[in-house]
Amino acid sequence: MANRPIHGGNLVWASALAGCPPEEILDFSASINPLGPPESAIAAIVRGLEFLSAYPDPQYSSLRSTLAHSHDLDPDWILPGNGAAELLSWACRDLAARSRVDLATPAFSDYERALRAFGAKIGRFPLSLERGRATLPIPLPTSTDSRGYGLLLNNPHNPTGRLWTREEIVPYLDKFDLIVVDEAFMDFLPPLQEQSVIGMVGEYENLVVLRSLTKFYSLPGLRLGYAVAHPNRLERWQSWRDPWPVNVLAVAAGIAAVGDREFQQRTWDWLRGAKRELYGALQAMDGFEPEWGTANFLLVRTARSSCQLQECLLREEQILIRDCLSFAELGDRYFRIAVRAEAENQRLVEALGRCTKVS
Amino acid sequence: MANRPIHGGNLVWASALAGCPPEEILDFSASINPLGPPESAIAAIVRGLEFLSAYPDPQYSSLRSTLAHSHDLDPDWILPGNGAAELLSWACRDLAARSRVDLATPAFSDYERALRAFGAKIGRFPLSLERGRATLPIPLPTSTDSRGYGLLLNNPHNPTGRLWTREEIVPYLDKFDLIVVDEAFMDFLPPLQEQSVIGMVGEYENLVVLRSLTKFYSLPGLRLGYAVAHPNRLERWQSWRDPWPVNVLAVAAGIAAVGDREFQQRTWDWLRGAKRELYGALQAMDGFEPEWGTANFLLVRTARSSCQLQECLLREEQILIRDCLSFAELGDRYFRIAVRAEAENQRLVEALGRCTKVS
Repeated sequence: MANRPIHGGNLVWASALAGCPPEEILDFSASINPLGPPESAIAAIVRGLEFLSAYPDPQYSSLRSTLAHSHDLDPDWILPGNGAAELLSWACRDLAARSRVDLATPAFSDYERALRAFGAKIGRFPLSLERGRATLPIPLPTSTDSRGYGLLLNNPHNPTGRLWTREEIVPYLDKFDLIVVDEAFMDFLPPLQEQSVIGMVGEYENLVVLRSLTKFYSLPGLRLGYAVAHPNRLERWQSWRDPWPVNVLAVAAGIAAVGDREFQQRTWDWLRGAKRELYGALQAMDGFEPEWGTANFLLVRTARSSCQLQECLLREEQILIRDCLSFAELGDRYFRIAVRAEAENQRLVEALGRCTKVS
Repeated sequence: MANRPIHGGNLVWASALAGCPPEEILDFSASINPLGPPESAIAAIVRGLEFLSAYPDPQYSSLRSTLAHSHDLDPDWILPGNGAAELLSWACRDLAARSRVDLATPAFSDYERALRAFGAKIGRFPLSLERGRATLPIPLPTSTDSRGYGLLLNNPHNPTGRLWTREEIVPYLDKFDLIVVDEAFMDFLPPLQEQSVIGMVGEYENLVVLRSLTKFYSLPGLRLGYAVAHPNRLERWQSWRDPWPVNVLAVAAGIAAVGDREFQQRTWDWLRGAKRELYGALQAMDGFEPEWGTANFLLVRTARSSCQLQECLLREEQILIRDCLSFAELGDRYFRIAVRAEAENQRLVEALGRCTKVS
């Protein structure tokens, strides 16, 4: 297991262990909507094949307008990226100029990679893993420093699935010099439950929101995300990167997907029922304690080693779960699983039962 | 013309002036192979649509192997990128750590953007625009400096189309601490004429070669390029960027295209004849002096304003040429045109004749 991947979704590695082609693995490790990609997006991609011989519009005007419209903003408050992952690099370059950047840990491992890439000093504040609703563990800065303090926050939080409300975030906006909120999974919450701070960018110039379009619309292979922030900041980021980071098929798919209300509603309807059912089935099993999550994945505490479970599930069942070694603080007693279609979730639960008996 | 784009290929801007949809413009401004995309690449993209719901392999193993094989190298000497443009950013971050980075000017405008993004001090050395073969205008560093000197070289050179031989580059490899050779157009030269320095990366750890796959294979909308350099350097670059910069359709297209020998031969055959014919037609016209170029574009000196010519060609003929305002040193008396299919080149020559009479 020397080449265990740090990041989720490495099906090449998994398929070697499972002894089957990558596409035959049932992948619970990447938290991708199983209902997608939407037909509207695939149709847009197919129509877009005709335009591969032209460079993308460096201003990405149509995509920016569509995204801006969906948030009641002007287009210059939106910057599309080659996945939210690309924008994280520029966010971290911006954050790294502060005297310290605070994280709630465990955190998505690429946060540390991107912060270190630009020489940031990192402050780590562990989240309580006790069950029940936890407050943000990050203290408000009290000292003043000419370079100020940065905060990189993930909401809903990966891998716990916890959600902080807008009200809980406001005090941080008043005290930190730059706050980047990674809302990669926020769109999985229906309109009445979501707690996005996108609506607050006009009021807070020190706020950046990162959004992904590839998890909810099942297009991680295509790469598409966007940042929402003050136009001056986004213009600076643009001067740091090349003129064409987003490919034309991602542009076409993004415009179609954002307008697909039917797909969005269908996803929220599926997730409500499927997550409750999966959570209940895991709770009923010996040796597993799932944490209730607001996004499309569940963090599960396990009495047995998650590495051994992962290996058994791969070898015997061709199922991939996300072991939590990449979240160092969680050690070997946690794993994360995406919520998938009901029948697939059932297959996972049965496989977990068999692997528990074997190991 | 306030919103004139700095970079070529902005068909959105051009279509507003031309009064027609972008796809109806005959685009000579972006130097893209008119024979492509190859059918093999399109077929691979269509097959790849099935895999959009999975993240790309963060190691890009298949693509790296294919590219490495084509250059007789090991895969860890290759780093795929989201277009050569993305890799230019990391090359410039590396270059910017030197005490100065030298360029032969005029240079592709994104070189300065990317170097400035990382705070580089830039040395500009003007290329003689006199006709005939010019030597590299960059002096070899004589002083020693602990941070050393960097060189960013474009071969063949854009926009002049000049080519420097391997022998001319060697003395620079011996004296500069880091040399990045952007060979974005090198694949347009057939095997017996090309002067790539890729074969020298094993000998020179201070050498990086950037290659594009989207100009020769007509896929600029998809974004695909690669860097060739010592594995230690490429690993460092990887730690600076997110894990999935290349989308899965670009991976599929790249693997198919690199193996398409028939398309490659057809391109070299077309370019030899079409370029000679276009060059001859321009030479025969009053007021135009084309420079012979080794790549798939021609730089043309014009007796009239290239801005006025560009506007006339757009408004009256729905033809877009690359005016040279983005190459500040060339001013308003030069334009650059891609070599396209024979009938299209003929249409351009006739349109140039009409616009010359009008203005």
